[in-house]
Amino acid sequence: MEPAYTTGTFTEFPGFPTTAWGAMEPGAPLTCVTIKRRTPGPTDVHIKIKYTSACHSDIHQVRAEWSKTGVFPMVPGHEIGGVVEEVGSEVTKFKVGDVVGVGCMVDSCRSCRNCQRGNEQYCLPPGPVMTYNSPAKYPHCPGHAEKRTQYGGYSQDIVVHEGFVCRIPETLSLAAATPILCAGITVWSPIKHYGLKAGDRFAVAGLGGLGSMAVKFAKAMGAHVTVISRGKSKMKDALEGLGADAFVDSTDAEERKAAADSFDFLLDCIGANHDIEQYMNLVAVDGKLVLVGLPPSKVTLSPFSFVAKRKSLCGSMIGGIAETQEMLDFCGEHGIECEIEMAKIEDINELYERMLKGDVKYRFVFEPTTW
Amino acid sequence: MEPAYTTGTFTEFPGFPTTAWGAMEPGAPLTCVTIKRRTPGPTDVHIKIKYTSACHSDIHQVRAEWSKTGVFPMVPGHEIGGVVEEVGSEVTKFKVGDVVGVGCMVDSCRSCRNCQRGNEQYCLPPGPVMTYNSPAKYPHCPGHAEKRTQYGGYSQDIVVHEGFVCRIPETLSLAAATPILCAGITVWSPIKHYGLKAGDRFAVAGLGGLGSMAVKFAKAMGAHVTVISRGKSKMKDALEGLGADAFVDSTDAEERKAAADSFDFLLDCIGANHDIEQYMNLVAVDGKLVLVGLPPSKVTLSPFSFVAKRKSLCGSMIGGIAETQEMLDFCGEHGIECEIEMAKIEDINELYERMLKGDVKYRFVFEPTTW
Repeated sequence: MEPAYTTGTFTEFPGFPTTAWGAMEPGAPLTCVTIKRRTPGPTDVHIKIKYTSACHSDIHQVRAEWSKTGVFPMVPGHEIGGVVEEVGSEVTKFKVGDVVGVGCMVDSCRSCRNCQRGNEQYCLPPGPVMTYNSPAKYPHCPGHAEKRTQYGGYSQDIVVHEGFVCRIPETLSLAAATPILCAGITVWSPIKHYGLKAGDRFAVAGLGGLGSMAVKFAKAMGAHVTVISRGKSKMKDALEGLGADAFVDSTDAEERKAAADSFDFLLDCIGANHDIEQYMNLVAVDGKLVLVGLPPSKVTLSPFSFVAKRKSLCGSMIGGIAETQEMLDFCGEHGIECEIEMAKIEDINELYERMLKGDVKYRFVFEPTTW
Repeated sequence: MEPAYTTGTFTEFPGFPTTAWGAMEPGAPLTCVTIKRRTPGPTDVHIKIKYTSACHSDIHQVRAEWSKTGVFPMVPGHEIGGVVEEVGSEVTKFKVGDVVGVGCMVDSCRSCRNCQRGNEQYCLPPGPVMTYNSPAKYPHCPGHAEKRTQYGGYSQDIVVHEGFVCRIPETLSLAAATPILCAGITVWSPIKHYGLKAGDRFAVAGLGGLGSMAVKFAKAMGAHVTVISRGKSKMKDALEGLGADAFVDSTDAEERKAAADSFDFLLDCIGANHDIEQYMNLVAVDGKLVLVGLPPSKVTLSPFSFVAKRKSLCGSMIGGIAETQEMLDFCGEHGIECEIEMAKIEDINELYERMLKGDVKYRFVFEPTTW
């Protein structure tokens, strides 16, 4: 029987070699490998990757947990910070030496109504070309004919169409800005799209990489920010470390009761299964619960919980390229970076286990230049 | 053991007698009874009820199906059309002879942030005083001290604070305008609140009293209107009778597939349990599914169904008094009435069974003046 995932070798497509960490098949441990990157075309930017960080979804994808399929061999990583090494002859946005970042997508159809509105993340089927776990999907993608596999950021080099590269403000530490390319945009996009306003009562459920960025954005926008977390272990860090205004322990029925019907905007960053109705009960009349995680099981809630008080359950997935740049510029202006722990790529398999336990504040960052 | 519902007699509170149809306890058949209405106070309007219609929720409430409790004895009815018989000394909005309507609410706290915004339907706990199945809740409600039971519209007379009475445009048939007080406002309010625009692809799921009004409103607002219904029995009526632009049979997988990701706004008027994810799959990127029914079971859907395409599951419940007047004025300008069947109140118990089967186009209307 054919495997449900694609197979091949790390060097089957033409181009130049570079060092990366990847897996040959779903669930296999990551190992150090040589991959080939395409020779930069006229609209391409070749980036020397200085930093790359580990997102929870890297684990889901390299283990094929979401869809039971995947594009393998796989090099994960969609939080990428680096410096432009060379540019194609038609590149206008970047020059050699620019400090840049790449997030979850490296191309899209560029023409559907969602792409035209800057919502490449919702590019109509077959959808965007993801930074990894994706083939080249469109005729304008180099390597389209042979369905070239895209390799992610756990690598020393990457080659990306200039339209999917963002500029990192020079006021930011590149290492601490790198995780913003996914952990930041995933919360920035819904905060902007669903219209968080100064003075709104904002809550973040789940304090990981995404949640920590949401606290910083919402504070900078003038919202009153509450962190909702299981137990009190993260209370001090939420209030003192990240500057949240309040904390609710979701395991404490009294605290939940006191917070009932109180939040204009609750951003739910919890990726594990959880009782979403319990969180909906904390949303105010006319308020929104926006889910950005993808729990494995279906969500279940009583119609009364949202009908009777005109509440909404909304979704959002990563963000578009223009709004990623807008977010990075906002971070530059407000000095917003991600809290990070520098880590060694050799430990990646153990670090994944720590991430699954929530034992990271709030992103592990690697330095490919040291590999 | 005490019953979970209140008990008493139809004439236990002071006032003047009038004829009504009501039930002594949950599930009891409705019978013709004499009730007492309060003597009109200075801000009250005494209305001679000319027409009253039967809403599906009358059945849920008189059988105590939603909450297993209720305020009994009960006279149902919250779609009320009549003529002002007398007004209190301080009434300024109405005079004797005015044609008026009363909907689901007859009072509220009048001071919370929701009431102040004209959202009396979301009046903070203990919430609005409903037209029936509700006691007098606030000190400003006549009969507050003795928790006077509110009796609904299946009656020849009603006395209501002028702030909860609406004016019926003279261009409308009063009989056909009466059901709009609930069936209309329940769909008008979300259509306005969630911002239906001309040209939007709008769909109505469930073609009953609410759905039929939603088709009319959305057509008048310039939307492209699709009716979604189980089977094809209502197709002709949807397209020819109500003027919908398209029809989707929700039991036909091919029709569902063709309509996938296509509606900007799907108004779900289905009161019975149904697979809401199947309807969410028909909503477009950035679109909304707004539920106005209250299915008995919890709703269940995959996070992917709304996260991956930035869709929203929203709720809405009836509507405020000012927007009810706005809707009635819109109906007057556009000649919008409800499709009705005149019926005899003596048949009410059989008519309820027909309503439960969806065998009504689209509201049964009664004439209390003939009782």
